[in-house]
Amino acid sequence: MGVAYSSLPSPFPCTATIHITGSSLFPYASKANPERVINSIFNHTNNICLANLQKPTKKFGSFSRFSHHSTCLGSKIVPSKCCAKVREMETQERILQKPLIDFHGIDEELVQKMVYDALVWSSLHGLVVGDKSVQRSGKVPGVGLVHAPFALLPMAFPESQWNLACEVAPIFNELIDRVSLDGKFLQDALSRTKKVDAFTSGLLDIHSKMLEINKKEEIRLGLHRSDYMLDEQTKLLLQIELNTISASFPGLGCRVSELHRSLLNYHGEHIGLDPRRIPGNTSVDKFAEALAKAWTEHNRPRALVMVVVQPEECNMYDQHWLCAALKDRHNVTTIRKTLAEIDKEGEILPDGTLLVGGQEISVVYFRAGYAPTDYPSEAEWRARLLMEQSSAVKCPSISYHLAGTKKIQQELAKPNMLERFLENKEDISKLQKCFAGLWSLEDSDIIKKAIERPELFVMKPQREGGGNNFYGDDVRTNLVRLQKEGTQEDAAYILMQRIFPTVSPTILVREGICHKDHAISELGVYGAYLRNKEKVIVNEQCGYLMRTKVSSSNEGGVAAGFAVLDSIYLS
Amino acid sequence: MGVAYSSLPSPFPCTATIHITGSSLFPYASKANPERVINSIFNHTNNICLANLQKPTKKFGSFSRFSHHSTCLGSKIVPSKCCAKVREMETQERILQKPLIDFHGIDEELVQKMVYDALVWSSLHGLVVGDKSVQRSGKVPGVGLVHAPFALLPMAFPESQWNLACEVAPIFNELIDRVSLDGKFLQDALSRTKKVDAFTSGLLDIHSKMLEINKKEEIRLGLHRSDYMLDEQTKLLLQIELNTISASFPGLGCRVSELHRSLLNYHGEHIGLDPRRIPGNTSVDKFAEALAKAWTEHNRPRALVMVVVQPEECNMYDQHWLCAALKDRHNVTTIRKTLAEIDKEGEILPDGTLLVGGQEISVVYFRAGYAPTDYPSEAEWRARLLMEQSSAVKCPSISYHLAGTKKIQQELAKPNMLERFLENKEDISKLQKCFAGLWSLEDSDIIKKAIERPELFVMKPQREGGGNNFYGDDVRTNLVRLQKEGTQEDAAYILMQRIFPTVSPTILVREGICHKDHAISELGVYGAYLRNKEKVIVNEQCGYLMRTKVSSSNEGGVAAGFAVLDSIYLS
Repeated sequence: MGVAYSSLPSPFPCTATIHITGSSLFPYASKANPERVINSIFNHTNNICLANLQKPTKKFGSFSRFSHHSTCLGSKIVPSKCCAKVREMETQERILQKPLIDFHGIDEELVQKMVYDALVWSSLHGLVVGDKSVQRSGKVPGVGLVHAPFALLPMAFPESQWNLACEVAPIFNELIDRVSLDGKFLQDALSRTKKVDAFTSGLLDIHSKMLEINKKEEIRLGLHRSDYMLDEQTKLLLQIELNTISASFPGLGCRVSELHRSLLNYHGEHIGLDPRRIPGNTSVDKFAEALAKAWTEHNRPRALVMVVVQPEECNMYDQHWLCAALKDRHNVTTIRKTLAEIDKEGEILPDGTLLVGGQEISVVYFRAGYAPTDYPSEAEWRARLLMEQSSAVKCPSISYHLAGTKKIQQELAKPNMLERFLENKEDISKLQKCFAGLWSLEDSDIIKKAIERPELFVMKPQREGGGNNFYGDDVRTNLVRLQKEGTQEDAAYILMQRIFPTVSPTILVREGICHKDHAISELGVYGAYLRNKEKVIVNEQCGYLMRTKVSSSNEGGVAAGFAVLDSIYLS
Repeated sequence: MGVAYSSLPSPFPCTATIHITGSSLFPYASKANPERVINSIFNHTNNICLANLQKPTKKFGSFSRFSHHSTCLGSKIVPSKCCAKVREMETQERILQKPLIDFHGIDEELVQKMVYDALVWSSLHGLVVGDKSVQRSGKVPGVGLVHAPFALLPMAFPESQWNLACEVAPIFNELIDRVSLDGKFLQDALSRTKKVDAFTSGLLDIHSKMLEINKKEEIRLGLHRSDYMLDEQTKLLLQIELNTISASFPGLGCRVSELHRSLLNYHGEHIGLDPRRIPGNTSVDKFAEALAKAWTEHNRPRALVMVVVQPEECNMYDQHWLCAALKDRHNVTTIRKTLAEIDKEGEILPDGTLLVGGQEISVVYFRAGYAPTDYPSEAEWRARLLMEQSSAVKCPSISYHLAGTKKIQQELAKPNMLERFLENKEDISKLQKCFAGLWSLEDSDIIKKAIERPELFVMKPQREGGGNNFYGDDVRTNLVRLQKEGTQEDAAYILMQRIFPTVSPTILVREGICHKDHAISELGVYGAYLRNKEKVIVNEQCGYLMRTKVSSSNEGGVAAGFAVLDSIYLS
C-alpha cells in the first residue's frame, strides 16, 4: 500500500510516493485545466460526436503558452507560415518532456501529404462520423458524412505501461462481475448518492426490484473500457474510470490503428517510425465475438441482438462496424431501437422471452441509457425495467452498470475493499497500482487538504454524461459552499487525485483541417467478459482506444480544445 | 451486313432487321426522351457528381405514366402508402416487358431493411462522393461526404450480350490503337468539324504539331470504357460511345458490385436472387495494374503517375480508389494536378522527361481535359501541349483522345471502314454487330428521313461534355434550320439511331432516400490496353459499370430524373 501525497491520509493504493508540484510539472495547470477538458469530453460522453466538439479558440492572451497552427488543405499544399512560432513552442515544451519524435519538426510538405493521404484513407475505409451541421446525419446512414477527427500519427506510449493495462483488463472484468453479484454492497455504497442524484436513484430502483424478485442473470456479458492517463512525473498508469455501459469507439478505434499503420507503411521511414510498433487492435472483432458467443449461449437461433440507441447518433458508424462484424463473421443479425421504441414495441412472454416489435431478442447491447438525458420521460425508464426483467442477456445488466459508477470506483479504492471481491493477491496488487487517489466527501481530512491545495484535486459528480467536473479554485469554492450548506449534496460528488499527463507536440486533423498543437492523451483498454452458470467463457483484453486532446490554455482560464481518435506507438 | 430500318439506306452494320414502333414499344417516348437524359447525364459528363443531379420532379400530370415512390429513412421503418399506385404501374409495365424479378413487388419492410443496410455498407466501404451542397467537398477529401447514388439491386442483363460486350472490348482496344496511328485519317475525318468546333480544333492543333515533329508514342496506354444500351425489341447490344479519355467510375463501379453481392448474400434468398450471378468486377485492380505496367515500361523508378484533375471534383473518391490500388498493390505513387498547375509547374528536359513541380512524371492519367470547360484559358491548352510533347506515357495521347470522338465513331461505322484498321473478319463482324446507325449530316437521304421521322434519331454534337443532344421535334427543327442556313454548322453534329432500351421497375437510392421507379440502364465495359515498340503487353476487358436512370416523363415533356450506379445480374 502506498501513499498518494506524503502528507495526506491515503487510501491511495500505489506503491510509489508522488510529488506533484503543479507549477513546475504543468506550469499552466491552474489556467489550462487540461483534465477538465479531458474529463468533460472523454469520460462522460461515450457516444459524443467528436466531429462537433467545440472548436479551438483562436484568442490567445499573454498567458497563452501554445497556439494553434492550422493549415487548410486545398488542391495545393500551402506551406506553413508559423514555423518560428512552432519552434518557440517546442523549446518551451522540452522543459516538460523530450518527445520520442518531434512531430512538429516533420517537414511541412510531408505533413500535408500525410494529412491528404489520411483524409482519403478515412473516406475510403469508413473512418467517418455524422456531421452534426448536416440535417439527418444522425438519423440516416450515408448522408452528412465527415471523417472522424484523428491524430495524424500514433502517440508514443511506454510498452511496460501498455502491458500492465492489458494485464489488468481481465482482472477488472472479473472484479466487475463479482461486484455485480453483491447487491447489498451496491445498494449500500450508493445509498447516500441515491438521495441527491435522481439518475442514480432511477437505476437503483430497478436494481432493488431485481433484488426483490431474486432475479439471477445466468449469462453475464460485459464489454468494458477502462480509461487511463499516464502521470507525467511518476510514469504511473492511473485509472480515470471504468466504463461498463456503452463503451464507445471499438469500431473507429480499430480503424485509426489501421490508418496509422497504413501511413507508417508509406511514410514511416522518413520520420523514423516503424508500423510494427503500433499494437494490433482487435476490439471490434473481439466485441463481436463476445456478443456472438452470448447469443449462442442464449441459444435461440431466430433471436436477434438489439442495439439500444439514442434517437440521433452521429457516432453510428462506430456501432455499425460492430454490427457488420457480428453479421459478417458470425451471421448474427442486429436491430437498432431507441428506449422509447422499446417501451412501445416491447413485451415479455411468461417464460421471460423479450420481444420487441414481435422479434425475439437474445442480447441487449446498450449504446444509450448511460446518461440522464437518455431518460427524458417515464417511457425510457419503463423500457429499461422491461429489458432488465426479461431473460435476454443485458450488456450491461443493471448491476454491471452500477458497478461501473464513480462512487463504486471510489469505494473499491478504499483499503482492503478489493480483497472482498478478489482472492489473488497479485491481481489485487496490479489493480491497486492503477488506482488514482479517490475519496468520498465524508472524509473531512481530505476536504481540508483539497480546500488548501485545490489544484491537486478534481471534484467529480457521480452523475454520468456530464462534463461537470470542478478544478482548481472551483474545487475550493464548491467544497466551502457544501460545508456551509450542510446538506447531503456532498454525496453527489467524489474527489479524485488530479493527474498531470504528459504533454506532447501533436498533429490533429478535424473537418479536413490540420492543427499542430500540444496535447494530452488518454488510453482506453477494452475488455470482454462472458460467463454462464457454470463457467467463464470469455475473459480477455481486446484492443484499445487512444484519445488525444489539445491542452491549450487561454487568458480566461477556460480550457478550449478538441479530442481526436488516436492509436499507440510503443516506446 | 444488316439493315437498320428497312427503308433507310444503311451503313448500319447489324444483321437483324429492326422494327421500331415508338408508340407501342416505348409509348411515352416522344414525351419522355429517356435517351436524352441518358445521353446528357451518362455519356458526356464522365466525371459528373452523380449525387447532385437534378432531383426527380414531383409534379405529375395526366400523361404521367410513372410516378416516384419515395420513402425517407429515419430510425423507423415507414411502410409505403403508395402500394396501389405501384401496382398500377407494374400492370402498365408488363405491356413493355416482364421483368426477371419484380423489384417493386418486394415486401416494403424488406426493401427498407435492405436500403438501410446498403446505406451503412456504402458509408463503411467508401462508396461515397462529395456532396456539392457542402463547401470544400470537391476540394478537400474527408469532408462533405455522401453515399454515391445507387440502385438497390443489380439490373438483369442477358448473359449472351454480356459475353459479347466482354469479347469486343479487346478488339475495340486494338481498333483505337490502330486508328490512333493513322494521323491523316484523324485529321481528314475531323477537318470539317474543326472549322465549327473550337474544342476539337484545339485538340487537332496539338495533334498536328505532333505530326509535324513526327512524335512517336512508343508506350501506348488506353483505359477505355465502351458504353452500350440493349435495344428492347431486337435485343441488340448497341454502342452509345467509346470513352478513350477519363473513363470514370472504375473505382465506385467495383464497390457497387460488392454492395450488391453483400446484399444478396444476406437477402438474396428472400427475393430469389443468387449473388453468384453478379459478374466479378475488377476494373479498379486491372486499371491499376495497367497503369503500373506502363510505369514499369517507362522504367524510371523515382517517377510518379500524375492524375490530371479538375480544380473541384466531387467524384474524387472514384479516382482515389484507383490511386490506392496503384499504391497498395504496386507501390506506385500518384500526384494530382490541375491543367493550370501543370502549366505553372511543368517543364520538359532536353531528353523529353516531364517534370511537374520538380518531380518526374512517367505516366499522365487524365481525369480532366475531356470537355471544353476544362480549358478556360490558354494556360490549360499549353499544359496539354506540354504533356503531349514529353516522353511521358499519356493516358490518353492526343491521338487516342481524337480516336474516341463521336465523329470518328461515325466514320468507323461507315461500310468497309473497319477493314482499313483490322484484319480479322470475325473481329470486324463482332464490332459491327454493336454499331448503332450513325450518319454524318452530309448525307442528304438520312437528313430527309430524320426530318420525316425525327423520333427515330438522336442528333449529337461532336463536342464532348455537353448533354446537348436533340431528340424528337428538336431534331426536325434543327435539321431544317441547318438546311436553310446552309452554313458548315452541320459538321458539328452527327445523327445516331435512337435506341429504345428495356424499361425495368427499379429501386434507386439517392441522398439516403429510396425511390421506386422505372428505369433504363446503360452498360459500360472497361478495357485496358498497353503496348511498347515491340509488343502488346496488356489487352483485356476489365470490369464493368452499369448506370441506371429513371425514365419518368411529365406533362411538360421535359424528362426529369437521375442516374445511379448499378451492377449486372446475369439472366
